Amino acid sequence: MKQKAGSGQRSPPGPQSLALPARPKTPKPHKIAVQDLRASLVQAQVEHLAADFPVIVMIAGFDAAGKGEVLQVLNEWLDPRHLETIAFNTPSDEERERPPFWRYWRHLPARGNIGIFMSAWNTVALAEEAFAKSRPKRFARAISHIANFEKMLVDDGALIVKVWLYLSRKTQRKRLLKLEQDPKTRWRVSPDDWKHNAAHDRLDALSRELMKATDQPGARWTVIDSEHPRTRDLAVGHAILSQLRQHLAHRAPAKKPAATASRATPVPLVALGRKLLEQVDLSKKLASTAYKARLHEDLGNFNRLAWEAERTARSIVFVFEGWDAAGKGGAIRRLISAVDPRFYGVVPIGKPTDEEKAHHYLWRFWRHLPRDGMVTVFDRSWYGRVLVERIEGFCTEPEWRRAFEEINEFERQLTEHGAILVKFWLHVSKAEQLKRFKAREAVAYKRHKINTEDWRNRDRWESYETCLGDMVSLTSTEFAPWHLIPANDKRHARAEVLRTACRTIETALDA
Amino acid sequence: MKQKAGSGQRSPPGPQSLALPARPKTPKPHKIAVQDLRASLVQAQVEHLAADFPVIVMIAGFDAAGKGEVLQVLNEWLDPRHLETIAFNTPSDEERERPPFWRYWRHLPARGNIGIFMSAWNTVALAEEAFAKSRPKRFARAISHIANFEKMLVDDGALIVKVWLYLSRKTQRKRLLKLEQDPKTRWRVSPDDWKHNAAHDRLDALSRELMKATDQPGARWTVIDSEHPRTRDLAVGHAILSQLRQHLAHRAPAKKPAATASRATPVPLVALGRKLLEQVDLSKKLASTAYKARLHEDLGNFNRLAWEAERTARSIVFVFEGWDAAGKGGAIRRLISAVDPRFYGVVPIGKPTDEEKAHHYLWRFWRHLPRDGMVTVFDRSWYGRVLVERIEGFCTEPEWRRAFEEINEFERQLTEHGAILVKFWLHVSKAEQLKRFKAREAVAYKRHKINTEDWRNRDRWESYETCLGDMVSLTSTEFAPWHLIPANDKRHARAEVLRTACRTIETALDA
Repeated sequence: MKQKAGSGQRSPPGPQSLALPARPKTPKPHKIAVQDLRASLVQAQVEHLAADFPVIVMIAGFDAAGKGEVLQVLNEWLDPRHLETIAFNTPSDEERERPPFWRYWRHLPARGNIGIFMSAWNTVALAEEAFAKSRPKRFARAISHIANFEKMLVDDGALIVKVWLYLSRKTQRKRLLKLEQDPKTRWRVSPDDWKHNAAHDRLDALSRELMKATDQPGARWTVIDSEHPRTRDLAVGHAILSQLRQHLAHRAPAKKPAATASRATPVPLVALGRKLLEQVDLSKKLASTAYKARLHEDLGNFNRLAWEAERTARSIVFVFEGWDAAGKGGAIRRLISAVDPRFYGVVPIGKPTDEEKAHHYLWRFWRHLPRDGMVTVFDRSWYGRVLVERIEGFCTEPEWRRAFEEINEFERQLTEHGAILVKFWLHVSKAEQLKRFKAREAVAYKRHKINTEDWRNRDRWESYETCLGDMVSLTSTEFAPWHLIPANDKRHARAEVLRTACRTIETALDA
Repeated sequence: MKQKAGSGQRSPPGPQSLALPARPKTPKPHKIAVQDLRASLVQAQVEHLAADFPVIVMIAGFDAAGKGEVLQVLNEWLDPRHLETIAFNTPSDEERERPPFWRYWRHLPARGNIGIFMSAWNTVALAEEAFAKSRPKRFARAISHIANFEKMLVDDGALIVKVWLYLSRKTQRKRLLKLEQDPKTRWRVSPDDWKHNAAHDRLDALSRELMKATDQPGARWTVIDSEHPRTRDLAVGHAILSQLRQHLAHRAPAKKPAATASRATPVPLVALGRKLLEQVDLSKKLASTAYKARLHEDLGNFNRLAWEAERTARSIVFVFEGWDAAGKGGAIRRLISAVDPRFYGVVPIGKPTDEEKAHHYLWRFWRHLPRDGMVTVFDRSWYGRVLVERIEGFCTEPEWRRAFEEINEFERQLTEHGAILVKFWLHVSKAEQLKRFKAREAVAYKRHKINTEDWRNRDRWESYETCLGDMVSLTSTEFAPWHLIPANDKRHARAEVLRTACRTIETALDA
């Protein structure tokens, strides 16, 4: 809500002249204005291509204000090679069966690209609220989700240009009537349009509330009067141009994280963090016979619970983190042996692909979220951001610092949707790790599991302990607590993982 | 169906000894065999990582033969970092609303990776046929689709290892009963299992027919007797190992296409090909007023037809190809202006991403196919394979030669599913193109559309004509003919595109 159409922008030709009938013989100021704008837009796009941030253009506003026409004009004015248009219709079942923002994540533009979004998150929140009955808190929550989502993208460098096409109730009514009169355009008018016309005042008030709460640096709203189509189009074009130019100019050159500078042992954010890890009782053991009996029983339980989750459309997401050689793979294999292969997927997290690198770091995890009723096991996860990336300087300090809250928000959305999230840290002592490294090097088919990186990570044990402490302290939430598993004894670890999984799922299903 | 378990492979320890009760004090030949196998498998995987082909392991066979157990063993034996397991359940709506193979394409492993497929295309074809009534041709068609699909992947370098876990009817029955008796394993037995047990003979005959018809180099079947689990597991492991080793050894080193050698003007495959292009009447024109009237009417028609397609769940796929500056962008924008943005997507085809390069060249197009009722416009397309890639030597001659049939098969699957496919070639004269290049260079916001590549392509006009002739001759099928649009006059071209689209869709909807 920074600016009304025409104000504070390069002045488009006077709207009055456009309202008059065509004056063929005079020079055409509109045409000249469009040519200037197009040249500047394309020039800005060329600069943007070389920059490493995505642009999201959000077209929202009143029905019949001309969202479709604006979209078409933008498609004509902008270079189409790095441009996507994403308009949302009824969600598919794959979309419905995941947290609401999944469908937006899957369509986010890559760095260097522009994505034009229509009928997306803002529109959905408004439409849901406008005709909702007595659910006062929902709108506030929806708005806060939107603000968080956009902030996270902006923090990552994205530019979000949001335009609200304003139309008075009277003009809207006139346009709808005109569209209805022509058999060729009648299809454009839906019963919802009339419902919205009747609720114009309410929608206007709600949209102002939403815009006020979600207007933030890097994600500004521009309200554009849509009475006159040509003025409207130019105003939208100028809103994009000026914000893109500003973003290109003011964005600090991408700070390459100082990999060497960060080599010092990290300073803990939370003093008591490491205490939690030190309290893990690594002496715990389980004898072979007890293990077998317990495993057998708990696998049966887990199987029953997985079916129950499937029946009640609850997805289960496991996160496995742990020291190198702590036994993640073995624990995962035992766990999933109880589940029908059609219902689970294991996602090993290694080096990101270039499509993944071209997006927000959480994008690659969103793309693997399970549908309702399914099980996904992440073998390493988004916590790499606050562990290896923090320690090795693969991301900047502001980046890993804000990651804690971003991760909590991500997990909140997951669990609010109904997913059951179970996070394990498999803990071993430094001595036990050494023993296992050596044992692995002695066995031909295990040798590939050990490389120089593992030895280097081991050298940075103290740094990891600090970061782990912070991770456990700052991301153990009520909805997604960490489970620290003593794993010096493999049998004990596997049994404990299984039992913890059962207990967590059982509680979640009962709730 | 090359080998029975144990035959022709490194001999696993005698099955007899395994059937006997455990003999604790003797050395454990099974354990040693497993250790050897694991070491070899992991070694082969290391070599595979450096190679540039994907491996698909297909686990199929009788119920209760142990597909799940084999999967688990493989997950234990193989390095999980480049391994995916893909098991298929009921298709989602996003899957149902696209050609049947879409769900398999979306899960194909990248080069260097191994994907273990369960309950995939072979299993589905068998299950559908086993209990089908009086649809004699369907199975033959399903088999031919499978053989084509696998051949295409193999031609692209993939290794497909297919194992069929055989179990006699009697043993199957015994296992099902045993599973049912234990409350902890009862869930594993479904009513379908009993149905399949009753139909064992029929399934056996059908599976042999399927295996015989789909056994081809690079995609061999291995039938494995699954009476004894340990022997079975070793046999599966050895099947993968021996085929992977062979593939690594015998695969010719990736032939880098000789970019310079192919610089000569290509030799046409079809003599009459170019004639078709020469016959395009480039003198066709449309006056401004006639154009406007016609456009208005046809946009209305197209809109009506797009709604009708949506209502009847038919998707529409447009392919736009044409000389540089032939006016593809403008024609696309006019066309889609008649469609609600929620129902269409435009996919500009430029340089592939690395995820795309790591797959078969058609993969990137499969991933963008529309759901039923939706419209997708490809701005350039899979035809790049037989145009720019052929001319510039970006692919080898065998690759572009077989592309014609691969493309026809792709389009056949699309249209068999119900998609309406409309392919345009926008044709301009060499003189008209020059005029447009110069005009573009004169306009600031159009200058970005012209680059050195465009001028280079222009220099190779003759080569393009040859390749175009072949393309039009070899990929104009009954289900997906080419429409050659005279485009020296932009108005004529746009009107013609729109009218052709309407005519094609109308015919398809009436049929």
